[in-house]
Amino acid sequence: MIEDKNPQRTSLEELGEFGLIDHLTRNFEIKQTSTIKSIGDDAAVLDFESSQVVVTTDLLIENVHFDLSYVPLKHLGYKAVMVNLSDVYAMNANATQITVSIAVSNRFPLEALEDLYAGIETAAKLYNIDVVGGDTTSSTTGLIISITAIGTAKKDKLVYRSGAKPNDLLVVTGDLGAAYMGLQVLEREKEVFKVNPQNQPDLSPYTYIVERQLKPEARKDIIELLDKLEVKPTSMIDISDGLSSEVLHLCKHSDLGVEIYENKIPLDPQVISTCEEFNIDSTTIALNGGEDYELLMTISQDDFPKIKGNPNLTVIGYMTEKDRGTLLITRGEQAIPIIAKGWNAMKNED
Amino acid sequence: MIEDKNPQRTSLEELGEFGLIDHLTRNFEIKQTSTIKSIGDDAAVLDFESSQVVVTTDLLIENVHFDLSYVPLKHLGYKAVMVNLSDVYAMNANATQITVSIAVSNRFPLEALEDLYAGIETAAKLYNIDVVGGDTTSSTTGLIISITAIGTAKKDKLVYRSGAKPNDLLVVTGDLGAAYMGLQVLEREKEVFKVNPQNQPDLSPYTYIVERQLKPEARKDIIELLDKLEVKPTSMIDISDGLSSEVLHLCKHSDLGVEIYENKIPLDPQVISTCEEFNIDSTTIALNGGEDYELLMTISQDDFPKIKGNPNLTVIGYMTEKDRGTLLITRGEQAIPIIAKGWNAMKNED
Repeated sequence: MIEDKNPQRTSLEELGEFGLIDHLTRNFEIKQTSTIKSIGDDAAVLDFESSQVVVTTDLLIENVHFDLSYVPLKHLGYKAVMVNLSDVYAMNANATQITVSIAVSNRFPLEALEDLYAGIETAAKLYNIDVVGGDTTSSTTGLIISITAIGTAKKDKLVYRSGAKPNDLLVVTGDLGAAYMGLQVLEREKEVFKVNPQNQPDLSPYTYIVERQLKPEARKDIIELLDKLEVKPTSMIDISDGLSSEVLHLCKHSDLGVEIYENKIPLDPQVISTCEEFNIDSTTIALNGGEDYELLMTISQDDFPKIKGNPNLTVIGYMTEKDRGTLLITRGEQAIPIIAKGWNAMKNED
Repeated sequence: MIEDKNPQRTSLEELGEFGLIDHLTRNFEIKQTSTIKSIGDDAAVLDFESSQVVVTTDLLIENVHFDLSYVPLKHLGYKAVMVNLSDVYAMNANATQITVSIAVSNRFPLEALEDLYAGIETAAKLYNIDVVGGDTTSSTTGLIISITAIGTAKKDKLVYRSGAKPNDLLVVTGDLGAAYMGLQVLEREKEVFKVNPQNQPDLSPYTYIVERQLKPEARKDIIELLDKLEVKPTSMIDISDGLSSEVLHLCKHSDLGVEIYENKIPLDPQVISTCEEFNIDSTTIALNGGEDYELLMTISQDDFPKIKGNPNLTVIGYMTEKDRGTLLITRGEQAIPIIAKGWNAMKNED
């Protein structure tokens, strides 16, 4: 739970003129045939032949997006990559490369950065992407991570936020709200630790939701599944800011309305029990909790037989004409307008 | 000189759910045919057909890379783009797109960010690049700017740091050391201002060097010139950290030595006079001062007639076999080993 007190501490100044980025990435392997030249020149060189290229970028700031008092650096490195890959997969594209820039204050020893990069390396290996560039610099305060992810797809494979049609089914992957509830548990334990540092937290009832918070996975598997099922969504977005915010993006970009059925929203039992424990409504969490990194898509009704019964894909509603509005149909069969959640951390992803 | 006290201050919270990045980039035009989809989806979509793609990224941190007490935000936005484009041009590639991520603390009103983006927009217009994505978030302290630049070139046009051959001529564009001396002047005036805020600095004797510091230009014109002259450098790098550091990169990547002639290093008269005023050796500044954003390249001797007499290109030495070492031949005809300058701001560019 609490930051590992690493016994070995090499100060960043000690590295002298040795390139920090070279040191941190020295074991990184290149696997993508599209990577022509990786780290070590003014820029990376990539060759996508006749495919289109997708690019997305995210900035993660200590004490805004993560709290190092309970986030291990290795997990943070892994998660920072996932956050970006998720945006690439949301285009129905194959993620191929990332660049990683970090700024750190002197309070971080080299070993801490090695942990961070170990997480990045693990993510790169598992998701088969190349780390092709980056920048390391000092910061006056905390840790800053900026990642740009690059992916590729044939032109006719790409799926945008626009493109949904009336009566298309609204489909979500996995389950929702777990990352947010994991964060609530971690925040509570941090408060307990502050009061009594001897207290050892028992996180075993919360394993799933804590892992969803600390070590989320981007849904590369879904892109592969859709390809195998021969389903091309009509629109798609990743759920980083909660279901309500993201479905409103799809509605806006596709110029449509939507009906979502509360009783169809997939929730893990641990989310339900933790919501009860915290006395929070689980639907509110699924709608507004962030960081799930699941995919939200619309598919044509003709494709329903192909996805029916697939445990990864849950139909939660359908798209309507715009003038029908954006509605949540509650368990009590009431129709409630879906409202975008508040301005959170001033964050707006492209 | 001193930060503009903007009378209009719109707090970032007031923007509510309106997308800050949408607001800041609402007037940005798309000009590149390779930009298929810009800001507004999970990722930008680009199409480079059969060309290769170059990617480079840089992170700029307040009070590490810039000091807002004398850097106007509009200039900062412009410079942040230049820093990245310079790396693209150093590959002999055409810069086409950038993504811009920023993190800001609440002390910045919206109008300040609009100034920053006005500088970015000016740079994008003048250099014909599209701003295709980004991320805005809050920071706990100062301003952070992360830019990723993308460019394109036919495979046989790209120039790497490796590729130089013995006897190739070492050529530099423009002149060196001005940006560093501009910084010295600005730092001095800041100290004067601290002592006496009524004092109005007279920067007129330093116009060129201050502009080189505050508003550098990336050498897009050189890439076009080389193309027109039908000269393909054998190796190339941009000079962001001083001549000595960059020439050693070329030597290392090309496995060669070098001889540079001190009396050939191009210096602006204002650099020479300001160095005298500050009692600093101008050669030291040219070798170790950063932020010139000129290009350093090697060309085959066969190409010398094509560049001879061109005011943009100065031959300052030639490449040698590795065992000859990396030498500066002084005005007094002494051979002094070229040493990489110290570890500066922990910065290491890819």
